[in-house]
Amino acid sequence: MSTPIDQTGRDTLATSGWTVGETSAEKTFVFANFVDAFGWMTSVAICAEKLNHHPEWFNVYKTVKVTLTTHDTGGLSDLDVKLAQKMNQLAG
Amino acid sequence: MSTPIDQTGRDTLATSGWTVGETSAEKTFVFANFVDAFGWMTSVAICAEKLNHHPEWFNVYKTVKVTLTTHDTGGLSDLDVKLAQKMNQLAG
Amino acid sequence: MSTPIDQTGRDTLATSGWTVGETSAEKTFVFANFVDAFGWMTSVAICAEKLNHHPEWFNVYKTVKVTLTTHDTGGLSDLDVKLAQKMNQLAG
Amino acid sequence: MSTPIDQTGRDTLATSGWTVGETSAEKTFVFANFVDAFGWMTSVAICAEKLNHHPEWFNVYKTVKVTLTTHDTGGLSDLDVKLAQKMNQLAG
Repeated sequence: MSTPIDQTGRDTLATSGWTVGETSAEKTFVFANFVDAFGWMTSVAICAEKLNHHPEWFNVYKTVKVTLTTHDTGGLSDLDVKLAQKMNQLAG
Repeated sequence: MSTPIDQTGRDTLATSGWTVGETSAEKTFVFANFVDAFGWMTSVAICAEKLNHHPEWFNVYKTVKVTLTTHDTGGLSDLDVKLAQKMNQLAG
Repeated sequence: MSTPIDQTGRDTLATSGWTVGETSAEKTFVFANFVDAFGWMTSVAICAEKLNHHPEWFNVYKTVKVTLTTHDTGGLSDLDVKLAQKMNQLAG
Repeated sequence: MSTPIDQTGRDTLATSGWTVGETSAEKTFVFANFVDAFGWMTSVAICAEKLNHHPEWFNVYKTVKVTLTTHDTGGLSDLDVKLAQKMNQLAG
């Protein structure tokens, strides 16, 4: 289902604002307000369910802190890269 | 609660893409895909409930056709202008 | 991708509150308020995108009128039955 | 705007599944799946914005861990009780 991430994947994440750790990647998205933040979360939620890969995310008001990891592979996978890129794109 | 719309209000709507009729205003928003369309609808839904003024809207895939009217005043009101402006802004 | 509906499918829809026509099925869902209606719509939206099959739906306040049809097959298909059942289930 | 919570408020929270601390209250909601969890979050989001009082919440798949506090009052307020009750009610 999911493929462990390689260096190219790590670079893709790192160069688009993600902090890449050994087994997970993190990024904090800050929006203008709660309305913008939650509209984005809804678009991301739809994409996540379609990918069958869900984020760990923490929201308070206009800030959303996301952690991506793939439990099946015990670390980062291509699904994390796909979801990260979708999140970046949707945050415009 | 709501104030009937005047000519300035009608002009505000008409010059931002709304088709203004006697008692309602309509606009069709088209997005890149369903994910974008529904994210926008969610942001709008949050604002609508806060205004205590809700749209009539029809969605299929990436298209959302909106009709605004105020039942209390039997026509267009300042609430329709506020919601229309919010919708325009969120469609960015 | 999608299979035209047979009589069993039509019966499944008809016995769960859907009005089944030649090429589409309709049902009107009424909730307690807008907050309940839109929460349901969001759950449905996530499922629809995952099925890659989207409803035509009209919302005003607590009412959502849904029309299901499958353009590929020029009528009702198994995807309409799946989405209808999901909508029924989520409306609890 | 907000009133510091009294013992009645603390009891209301404590008897409906919230862990009440000195300055915040926590509850973990677990749903059947992500679709249910996020539909609930959307309904809550609409209510939160209307109350102008937002949760701190962490979601992963079907679990949502909520922390409520009121920064203005430096602790729990009537707004936390209102939002907590709404969350309980929407979780059915």
